[in-house]
Amino acid sequence: MGPGDQATPAEIKTAYELGKAIARANWVLLTGGRDVGVMDAASRGAKAAQGLTIGILPTDHAQEMSAAVDIPILTGLGHARNIVNILTSHVVIACGNGAGTSSEIALALKTGKPLIFIEANTTALGYWQSLSTAALNIANSPEQAIAMVRAHLP
Amino acid sequence: MGPGDQATPAEIKTAYELGKAIARANWVLLTGGRDVGVMDAASRGAKAAQGLTIGILPTDHAQEMSAAVDIPILTGLGHARNIVNILTSHVVIACGNGAGTSSEIALALKTGKPLIFIEANTTALGYWQSLSTAALNIANSPEQAIAMVRAHLP
Amino acid sequence: MGPGDQATPAEIKTAYELGKAIARANWVLLTGGRDVGVMDAASRGAKAAQGLTIGILPTDHAQEMSAAVDIPILTGLGHARNIVNILTSHVVIACGNGAGTSSEIALALKTGKPLIFIEANTTALGYWQSLSTAALNIANSPEQAIAMVRAHLP
Amino acid sequence: MGPGDQATPAEIKTAYELGKAIARANWVLLTGGRDVGVMDAASRGAKAAQGLTIGILPTDHAQEMSAAVDIPILTGLGHARNIVNILTSHVVIACGNGAGTSSEIALALKTGKPLIFIEANTTALGYWQSLSTAALNIANSPEQAIAMVRAHLP
Repeated sequence: MGPGDQATPAEIKTAYELGKAIARANWVLLTGGRDVGVMDAASRGAKAAQGLTIGILPTDHAQEMSAAVDIPILTGLGHARNIVNILTSHVVIACGNGAGTSSEIALALKTGKPLIFIEANTTALGYWQSLSTAALNIANSPEQAIAMVRAHLP
Repeated sequence: MGPGDQATPAEIKTAYELGKAIARANWVLLTGGRDVGVMDAASRGAKAAQGLTIGILPTDHAQEMSAAVDIPILTGLGHARNIVNILTSHVVIACGNGAGTSSEIALALKTGKPLIFIEANTTALGYWQSLSTAALNIANSPEQAIAMVRAHLP
Repeated sequence: MGPGDQATPAEIKTAYELGKAIARANWVLLTGGRDVGVMDAASRGAKAAQGLTIGILPTDHAQEMSAAVDIPILTGLGHARNIVNILTSHVVIACGNGAGTSSEIALALKTGKPLIFIEANTTALGYWQSLSTAALNIANSPEQAIAMVRAHLP
Repeated sequence: MGPGDQATPAEIKTAYELGKAIARANWVLLTGGRDVGVMDAASRGAKAAQGLTIGILPTDHAQEMSAAVDIPILTGLGHARNIVNILTSHVVIACGNGAGTSSEIALALKTGKPLIFIEANTTALGYWQSLSTAALNIANSPEQAIAMVRAHLP
């Protein structure tokens, strides 16, 4: 999960590497499915490593879908689709920050999903830590994020 | 799409054959994902032919999921997930009848999705025909249903 | 519940009378909230008798809302809002027929909501009866529908 | 919007006063509708001043509904109902903090809804300010919050 139109070059680069590493681990990548920002970059990274990608789209059509999504789920639910992203994921990686991403981080905390932060600034980490009883999982590299995911899989 | 707990043996047999034929056509099978009735039978059929199966579950957990679902989408939306089934499908096959299935058939008609009936009785066909300006697609066998799907793909 | 753009003059007249009678009974009217067809007519009827009207809108804005809705609920959920209509209603009245209305009738049957038909043709009644173990509630006038609602209230 | 089971006594007291003041201003109060925390307190406050209260419930039944809700909207959508709260509100007041409340604050920022903070700590305000281009509306008392709401109404 991460910013769409507002994503920074660093977030996009990290998302691409994460997607690649997720595919190499033989995991399925799930994103919000749009053709912008972290969603698109992670999906492209996963396809570069022959991974399988799912996109949970807010729309009832696929016109703004990332070309790197294999399996589009067209919800027509708008922002209500964010909870589908969280509930469906085994582990959530938040790459960067923004209002939409915050709603997903909040829902991951609310539903007790394993949650890993990457490309998060100290203001964000301080805030989410204040809402969480356990220590946050903070990754400094895609490799570290992947190791953290592995530790949270059944 | 088709009945869950109320599915008849004939509907289950047809759903299994449909799942198998969908997998052999190299298409992805999408169902409501639960471990009962038409959803489960179609998913099992598809796996018997090495297909890929998606299940759009009404729950926020996978406890009543068909064991033949590869990719569970956990929506937590209850019956509101029915529209996700319809919007995400390229072609909808209604196998049998019931209240839940009727809500999906109605949404397919409403959103203009290609819709194929199989194992439908004359009362049902008469009703849905009365709501539709075009002639219904009515299949008498899984093979015929598959041919109709093919005709509706882009 | 009833047709929007496709509503017939008879359905609109009945919906208006129903809205009026619902308000006179001091009940709250809930509709799909759009400015067309049965939703709009029932809301206008209720306001003509100083009733309170709720509209559960599919959109995230109120631009196509009936001017006779007092309390718009903006869902942004598209057709997924149909289940909110059904779950929130104490008793569902289906006035006329169509694909959208059929999805709501089907959900009412599925969730066991008291359901009253008015302005329904014999094809429709035959179909819904075939899905229901109990006898359908079929009203021949708004007055009869109101009496049936009263019988189903707690 | 505000915490449920985790609400502090200060948040509950402020929510009650807010509910009262909202009713006195002749506005309709909308909450998440459950019988705990800020939702319940605000609804009770509004009823103490003869206001009208709406509760957008996550459940498909009213068993955990606040007794001070006049109009329950039963969504059956779980956490996906949070977006309905935000889209339906003319102005959002966040009273206190927590994961669920954070998802609603995030959605309010995302959809550009007027948003007023009360009972917010500096960590929270610092975080939400970092996501917002405009200055946050921060109220130090229910009276100040009401004045801010008034300024944002059409």
